[in-house]
Amino acid sequence: MLNYFFNPESVCLIGASTNPEKLGFKILKNIIDGGYKGKIFPVNPKAEQILNLKCYKNVSEIPYFIELAIVAIPSDFVCEVVEELGKKCVKGVIIISAGFKETGEEGKKKEEKLKEIIKKYNMRVIGPNCLGVIDTKNKLNASFAFEMPQSGKISFITQSGALGTAILDWSMKENVGFSKFVSFGNKVDVSEIDLIEELENDPDTNVILLYLESITDGRKFIDLTKRVIQKKPIILIKSGKTESGSKSAISHTGSLSGSDIAFNAAIKKSGIIRANTVEELFDYALIFSYQPVLKGNRICVITNAGGPSVMTVDMIEEKGLNLAKFSLQTIENLKSFLPPASNINNPIDVLGDAKADRYEKVIEEVIFDDNVDGIIVILTPQITTQIRETAEIIARISKKCEKSVVACFMGGKRVEEGINILKQNKIPNYFSPERCVISLKAMDDYRKFKEKVIKGKYIEFKVEKEKVREKIENFKNQKISIIGDIEGREILSFYGINTITSFLAKNQEECEKFLEENKGVFVMKVVSPDIIHKTEAGGIKLGIRTAKQAKQAFEEIINSSIKYKPDARIIGVQIQEMVEKGVEVIIGVNKDIQFGHLIMFGLGGIYVELLKDVSFRIAPLTDIDVDEMINEIKTLRILKGFRNMPACDIDAIKETILRVSQLVCDFPEIKEMDINPIIVKEKDSIVVDVRFVFDF
Amino acid sequence: MLNYFFNPESVCLIGASTNPEKLGFKILKNIIDGGYKGKIFPVNPKAEQILNLKCYKNVSEIPYFIELAIVAIPSDFVCEVVEELGKKCVKGVIIISAGFKETGEEGKKKEEKLKEIIKKYNMRVIGPNCLGVIDTKNKLNASFAFEMPQSGKISFITQSGALGTAILDWSMKENVGFSKFVSFGNKVDVSEIDLIEELENDPDTNVILLYLESITDGRKFIDLTKRVIQKKPIILIKSGKTESGSKSAISHTGSLSGSDIAFNAAIKKSGIIRANTVEELFDYALIFSYQPVLKGNRICVITNAGGPSVMTVDMIEEKGLNLAKFSLQTIENLKSFLPPASNINNPIDVLGDAKADRYEKVIEEVIFDDNVDGIIVILTPQITTQIRETAEIIARISKKCEKSVVACFMGGKRVEEGINILKQNKIPNYFSPERCVISLKAMDDYRKFKEKVIKGKYIEFKVEKEKVREKIENFKNQKISIIGDIEGREILSFYGINTITSFLAKNQEECEKFLEENKGVFVMKVVSPDIIHKTEAGGIKLGIRTAKQAKQAFEEIINSSIKYKPDARIIGVQIQEMVEKGVEVIIGVNKDIQFGHLIMFGLGGIYVELLKDVSFRIAPLTDIDVDEMINEIKTLRILKGFRNMPACDIDAIKETILRVSQLVCDFPEIKEMDINPIIVKEKDSIVVDVRFVFDF
Repeated sequence: MLNYFFNPESVCLIGASTNPEKLGFKILKNIIDGGYKGKIFPVNPKAEQILNLKCYKNVSEIPYFIELAIVAIPSDFVCEVVEELGKKCVKGVIIISAGFKETGEEGKKKEEKLKEIIKKYNMRVIGPNCLGVIDTKNKLNASFAFEMPQSGKISFITQSGALGTAILDWSMKENVGFSKFVSFGNKVDVSEIDLIEELENDPDTNVILLYLESITDGRKFIDLTKRVIQKKPIILIKSGKTESGSKSAISHTGSLSGSDIAFNAAIKKSGIIRANTVEELFDYALIFSYQPVLKGNRICVITNAGGPSVMTVDMIEEKGLNLAKFSLQTIENLKSFLPPASNINNPIDVLGDAKADRYEKVIEEVIFDDNVDGIIVILTPQITTQIRETAEIIARISKKCEKSVVACFMGGKRVEEGINILKQNKIPNYFSPERCVISLKAMDDYRKFKEKVIKGKYIEFKVEKEKVREKIENFKNQKISIIGDIEGREILSFYGINTITSFLAKNQEECEKFLEENKGVFVMKVVSPDIIHKTEAGGIKLGIRTAKQAKQAFEEIINSSIKYKPDARIIGVQIQEMVEKGVEVIIGVNKDIQFGHLIMFGLGGIYVELLKDVSFRIAPLTDIDVDEMINEIKTLRILKGFRNMPACDIDAIKETILRVSQLVCDFPEIKEMDINPIIVKEKDSIVVDVRFVFDF
Repeated sequence: MLNYFFNPESVCLIGASTNPEKLGFKILKNIIDGGYKGKIFPVNPKAEQILNLKCYKNVSEIPYFIELAIVAIPSDFVCEVVEELGKKCVKGVIIISAGFKETGEEGKKKEEKLKEIIKKYNMRVIGPNCLGVIDTKNKLNASFAFEMPQSGKISFITQSGALGTAILDWSMKENVGFSKFVSFGNKVDVSEIDLIEELENDPDTNVILLYLESITDGRKFIDLTKRVIQKKPIILIKSGKTESGSKSAISHTGSLSGSDIAFNAAIKKSGIIRANTVEELFDYALIFSYQPVLKGNRICVITNAGGPSVMTVDMIEEKGLNLAKFSLQTIENLKSFLPPASNINNPIDVLGDAKADRYEKVIEEVIFDDNVDGIIVILTPQITTQIRETAEIIARISKKCEKSVVACFMGGKRVEEGINILKQNKIPNYFSPERCVISLKAMDDYRKFKEKVIKGKYIEFKVEKEKVREKIENFKNQKISIIGDIEGREILSFYGINTITSFLAKNQEECEKFLEENKGVFVMKVVSPDIIHKTEAGGIKLGIRTAKQAKQAFEEIINSSIKYKPDARIIGVQIQEMVEKGVEVIIGVNKDIQFGHLIMFGLGGIYVELLKDVSFRIAPLTDIDVDEMINEIKTLRILKGFRNMPACDIDAIKETILRVSQLVCDFPEIKEMDINPIIVKEKDSIVVDVRFVFDF
């Protein structure tokens, strides 16, 4: 769809310059030096010729159809030129020029105007304020990057040009090749969404690297990336833990769910690998572009030194990977040739005097063991260590088998040659054993993500959606945006969520009637805006079981309330089911501006307030999402029956969370919601209180 | 003290070899190539001459006093040779040979024998199973390392030879110089303790790097390092989170305090900087050896790219450093020359088109601002960026002022030249902004550690030590190793710790007498090994205030207990003070084999059991230790008055912890102890229950 940005038939450069110091010169030189095969038209009213190419006074003078235009002129003149390009039916425009919304109000206006022009001519624009576009396969370097990167299977799209230059420079040193590189700057038109879509089916892209500072459309981003990661991994680094998106939140959930939480929940939904640091971004880029994805998490460690292997094993455990357990055959074979002092079990210590042949035999042995999914080879440069030869052996054997192999050649000067051989052969080498493990872990996460996205089921419960719609319409008409208590519970009931029974009785007859119709044990409470301390006012009666008790309680409550505060406005008496003891749980919802409904789960009371021990996911939730949410909280053991407490009905919680997900997806006008508490018992769970905040 | 290992007058090498493949050749060559100025005596019964040096048949043949001997012969012959060396009054021996306790039982025996010989001749031995010793100042390379490292101010002592080779190799590439390097292997004699002591006052060592797998003497290690870090930083990496040192622990505390916890508590006590990964070890080595220690934690960030600076700021906040706030003068000056689009506030964005001069002016400006303690300079290789020149400027300006400056030149190929200039000028350059921050953080930790160790006060309370001694002697004589309840509380009372009053009454008269002597509200409980469900047996009475009530309660309890279980053995009735509500806290002690008494603090009940929200320190505790312990727990807010609860008397907890520290230091026979719970109220705290485990 955006093919003309990467493989255009013809390119024109507005702002081509004869001055080697100017971007307009540098870009033209890059296009030529890159080896671009199409037609090139420099535009500069003052020059006759630049770098041996004929120069045009303006766009309309170019006697040829232009597929891609690159604009590198001061921002004041950009709109005018883009209008001209529109008239000439140019498909794609890359605006290198800075001076737009990144500079303040004045620039923002220019960018708005630009947007209008783009719309008018139905063209696609990358930038402004960007480094440009590179496609190594088509040999197009439409950027002012320092040089053309090597070709390879990673595509990198970045919101920051500066970080782009750093990564391109890194790639030159690390022998990493790129397929496409796009710096998209202010994204006046083309955004990360368009570019990911473009890369989704690009046969030249195996891995997508993404640097983002902001997200254009959160929902679309999730839906798109969820689909794309089934085909190729997406590795993301996002700078800036942005502030809470909902500072004015009314609910607990709202106040707990800042937008970085929403973002992380989105990541979990989509299956993107998030790098936390620039270093991780590079590390992940290496392993994903060099090695096949892990098929399981059973790792074998081979080492010629004890210390580093202990660190590796510690990290493997910490990160939740597993040490492979070899087959009996493998162990027997290893025993047959390793010196007696070697450790045969994983990690395999080939000892300090190991030469390349010992490494070779061991790797040959374990790589074909079905119990091994990935291999870490550690080498310290000891006196007899054959560094180059060992690197060559790793390179050779790893090609025989579709398993991930990473290396950790520890040191500096002497190991350099070996590391270069590894690089050339697409074996990632990491500086420390810990980084080997973290990179394998990212692969394992990717594998699990893919599975999860496929296996997760959306369950649709039979609910009374129309009744809820009617109620919400009513609130909207009455301009009521916060509701709780009886009406809130009614909405939940319509969605099949078990709530306590309650009723606001206005007189004794209503009490009588309610008790005749409902069985159970009830508490009765005076409802009055003027009585805060209900117990003091004699406004509460417990343990009501019969109609007669209810009638009497009503009378007593009213009388003593009036006596307590003669001028109190009394609305009635609330009759509410008494709930057996159980564990208090909270289920909350907050609507994030970017990603939509964020659902929260945790234990109630101090667990949520003090320990903030809660988990978040973005709706709609699958069964797997809910399982994860429940398993993520640290206080899970309380639900599973801590000390002498019985285990809670976790299935009931799961179902409630799924029903909440269905409810909020059906009604986007729900802005916040706190089900707090929901009491979970040995069998079943029941909502005691709920509050909704609507955004009409 | 160990000077002869580093600057010997004469050296002999047992096992010198003519075969360039052998260690005995390599070591000799290293000694010669290193430029050693003293006398060298190769020993080999079969050779006349090696590398132009006369060879001796055996040690006794050498016609000269030997200060240092290096042994590189098969392990079977080592003891014999060391005995000879002893006879020749050799002061220091480095045993390179492997084949000792690291290989199993047989080797262990050899090592034991070796130990005896060493003792007999009062000589000092490094090794066996090690790489050797290097001293760059004295040009002694008594090792089989690949080559002599550069000279510098870091000394590195390592238990692993393999990791040693990796670090030496790294140093050659990174332009890092070493003063002394010691691989001490199995530490049959010379241990990390001896070596740290040696380096403490070594004028050629500014930073001590330490790689450990095991610790020889935990207490001594703490005391020594605590002293040494006042003079120079110690950076440690320890491999292997070893297993719980007390699997069979009886107490809560015992089961929670594995030996890695003890080790971390030791680190906190001593002020060592612990590197968690090899990479961190290297990163810290760079900053500590290159830069002055931070005097405060106010960091200034200078950058030519937005994205990386956001990441840096996030990390600064996460790690608890501060972004410096510039003086008004600085801001005014910056405004006067920076382009309008630059960000003048910290982080300072010099913009993508910044050349070296703009970096220069900015660094010149901020480095002299008194509100700045450290500077991070970020550079991305943009088109007009002057990489080399900027590196030179950083190097030059940083020398003008005693402030820590670190750089992050991001990229690979193009930034390489700049990075090399930084290296040559001792400006640490890190691959990612995050690592800059983490390294500065380590410096800030060191600064705080130093202060803490000096400022922390040991408080000695007036206690009745003799009475406790008497009691403990009694238990010992009676072979009682677990005590609790009344006797446990009595011990605490002798140390001025407030405990509930209680008394075991055998008859009505005793009840009467106790109530006459003690004011308060009491609970009375039957004490019988045969009655478990005391309430059911009618064996509990609450709210006893008077002697009369007590007498009556005694009678009723005895009667109904006999009725409940006629054959029950009844020991008496316990009269125990009833405690008002408060927060339940636990204070525990566990004696670690290595480090001694480990004191634990946390909130009781589920907080300790489920959330394991506890903190540890090693006794004796200072007031600062205790402050830290209390501030470390996540549930601190509960103590400070959560929701409508009043704040607890935290000072009372502190004092109790300090008194516990004094108690366990006075009585090393205390193996474990759980004060659980101690109830903390608005004013004061009181111990309800305690259990001691003694190790007689």
